[in-house]
Amino acid sequence: MSISLERLAQVIESRKPENGGDPETSYVARLFKKGDDAILKKIGEEATETVMAAKDARASGDASKVLYECADLWFHSMVMLAQFGLKPQQVIDELARREGVSGLEEKASRKE
Amino acid sequence: MSISLERLAQVIESRKPENGGDPETSYVARLFKKGDDAILKKIGEEATETVMAAKDARASGDASKVLYECADLWFHSMVMLAQFGLKPQQVIDELARREGVSGLEEKASRKE
Amino acid sequence: MSISLERLAQVIESRKPENGGDPETSYVARLFKKGDDAILKKIGEEATETVMAAKDARASGDASKVLYECADLWFHSMVMLAQFGLKPQQVIDELARREGVSGLEEKASRKE
Amino acid sequence: MSISLERLAQVIESRKPENGGDPETSYVARLFKKGDDAILKKIGEEATETVMAAKDARASGDASKVLYECADLWFHSMVMLAQFGLKPQQVIDELARREGVSGLEEKASRKE
Repeated sequence: MSISLERLAQVIESRKPENGGDPETSYVARLFKKGDDAILKKIGEEATETVMAAKDARASGDASKVLYECADLWFHSMVMLAQFGLKPQQVIDELARREGVSGLEEKASRKE
Repeated sequence: MSISLERLAQVIESRKPENGGDPETSYVARLFKKGDDAILKKIGEEATETVMAAKDARASGDASKVLYECADLWFHSMVMLAQFGLKPQQVIDELARREGVSGLEEKASRKE
Repeated sequence: MSISLERLAQVIESRKPENGGDPETSYVARLFKKGDDAILKKIGEEATETVMAAKDARASGDASKVLYECADLWFHSMVMLAQFGLKPQQVIDELARREGVSGLEEKASRKE
Repeated sequence: MSISLERLAQVIESRKPENGGDPETSYVARLFKKGDDAILKKIGEEATETVMAAKDARASGDASKVLYECADLWFHSMVMLAQFGLKPQQVIDELARREGVSGLEEKASRKE
């Protein structure tokens, strides 16, 4: 799993135009070329589609669409992380840190 | 990394009320008890906060808030995955599958 | 104002394929033809774009983009209302009702 | 209708702390006091809740929740407009302008 997530981040990184990504042929290179707003719009879009897929999944009993839409959401989150010089590992580390400090329960006091 | 993500999923799973999670003391157990809508609302909320954090980060030059909000977004995504009987590994596998088939580029043809 | 909002709702209504709207030439007719999910995705998209525009407006001092994006958000909300057989007047009436009952302050007790 | 929408905007305006709104007793005054981010988060939240309500409405056949959530979305949009010195009338005017210019169809060429 680790390898795939890191490898995926590397592939995304390689799609930056300054790393040779070609906006003509690569969707990700095109997103990087368009810049922040194009990437952030996708976060909002994919979050909405994830919520809709979850509603559909509960009605149909088929959770596979939740998986696909969550993959889209995480994928575009990784493009955003790369755009801001961050790595998925740092997100995992942040979550592990929260868990380590307080068994995830710090969130209970932090906000409702 | 892999261990942490899997371990985090296990901790989340253990917070389900049917697995002994206590809604009185655990934020995650409380989310599971409230059900789908409470979890899905958090996806929408955290996506919006991620977008806002990215806008702030570009203005301030400090990307740490993007990291924190993306962690919140992924965390609540994992609660949703658990709610629908899915595992983060399956999301990673789905992304790896897309990458394997077409070097991430299938998205280029799939949608703008 | 009232006339325009009602008139706008009438124009939207006339774009439904069953009322003669042509998906070939009309964006709104196309949305109706695609159905619920296409319309709801736009609500999520336009809300995200409104939030981004507000962030930009605060940085630039130019609020006009907030106005344009809010117009997009309200416009697609009206398409959704029409899709569910509702009218903007009913939304205004609901808000007036809340105001009448409690001077808008019922929200204070309703939720944070 | 016009009167109500304008009157609602006036009530919202009167809730600004600089106009005498009291954050202790008024939800809207509290939002204004918290500032941009608190208001914008509500736009994202209410948009997500509107999408969820529409999904529920399609399943249940009861559209009233769509009406309530759309009212919440428009209400918080109006708080945002007030925060940026804008009026709902300007949003209506913008929509009427688009309609006038091109019978709403300018959107067809503007974006999919």
